[in-house]
Amino acid sequence: MKASEQAATAWRRSGTRGFCVALACAGALLPLGPSAAEDGSPIFGVHIPDGYRHWELIAPSHETGEFNELRGILGNPIAVRAYEEGRLPFPDGTILVKLAWKREPSSEFSGAFVPGRPTTVQLMVKDARRYADTGGWGFGRFIAGRAVDRAQHEACFPCHQASVRDHDYVFTRFAP
Amino acid sequence: MKASEQAATAWRRSGTRGFCVALACAGALLPLGPSAAEDGSPIFGVHIPDGYRHWELIAPSHETGEFNELRGILGNPIAVRAYEEGRLPFPDGTILVKLAWKREPSSEFSGAFVPGRPTTVQLMVKDARRYADTGGWGFGRFIAGRAVDRAQHEACFPCHQASVRDHDYVFTRFAP
Repeated sequence: MKASEQAATAWRRSGTRGFCVALACAGALLPLGPSAAEDGSPIFGVHIPDGYRHWELIAPSHETGEFNELRGILGNPIAVRAYEEGRLPFPDGTILVKLAWKREPSSEFSGAFVPGRPTTVQLMVKDARRYADTGGWGFGRFIAGRAVDRAQHEACFPCHQASVRDHDYVFTRFAP
Repeated sequence: MKASEQAATAWRRSGTRGFCVALACAGALLPLGPSAAEDGSPIFGVHIPDGYRHWELIAPSHETGEFNELRGILGNPIAVRAYEEGRLPFPDGTILVKLAWKREPSSEFSGAFVPGRPTTVQLMVKDARRYADTGGWGFGRFIAGRAVDRAQHEACFPCHQASVRDHDYVFTRFAP
């Protein structure tokens, strides 16, 4: 069975529990131990939600430099409806998940680049009361299903705040 | 209302009727007249299906060169199940739709590229009997909702045949 097929059959099993997002958090890439996965992300307690891989596409993106990644930002139904209605701020219950893969040249079509190995899963979860100190958003950054360290999570909101405050701290726009 | 918001509110209205795909057809970019949209794509009679924008993401991609596009390949539920099961050939009723946007630098995050204006919508529709001469696939390539010319559609299958015959003529692999 090829890797792509294994990935496909594992698809339904993808996602662990809970939720979490950090669109554009950089930093060291040291995953935490198993307890982090159980407790969710540091600071925010965000988990990877069940079934997220089946959510609708909000937009793809391409991160250059050392990342060299293709990304797909998906949204849960609450997120999708908010984008449809052009609603800001996003309502409580909104979850955005950014999937990232290494960007690799297609071996089959010259000039095209396609997803290679998956790198991170990053989430933003809206709960205006719970996350009042960070614009109403809880963040989570996961590598191989495990949340990364506290320092990386501390970097999430300041970047979103500095860059996209006027879009309720969300970078991603809907791609029609 | 910003362009992105207009796009969001127009989301539900997206899609015309019917279906169609050409993953990786290049050529001249002259759209046909309104009759082409009504009749579907030349040769194949494929239409853009209702609700396609809500389908699940199979994978993003990046096309370099003159195209300079980000792309998102979505699949209908039959396609999604086939990918999940690693099933080849894809069953009748499979529809894949490739959405393409100009790739533009983000004005908000250095080093990131995001979707700009939409360029084409391309479809592949599986019907082994109807499209027996082209590997069981009907193709359609649309610009602003109108199918492009016959010559471009004639180029679809030969390229898919030459490059991805062993993957039932489909370039896109599932990105986990």
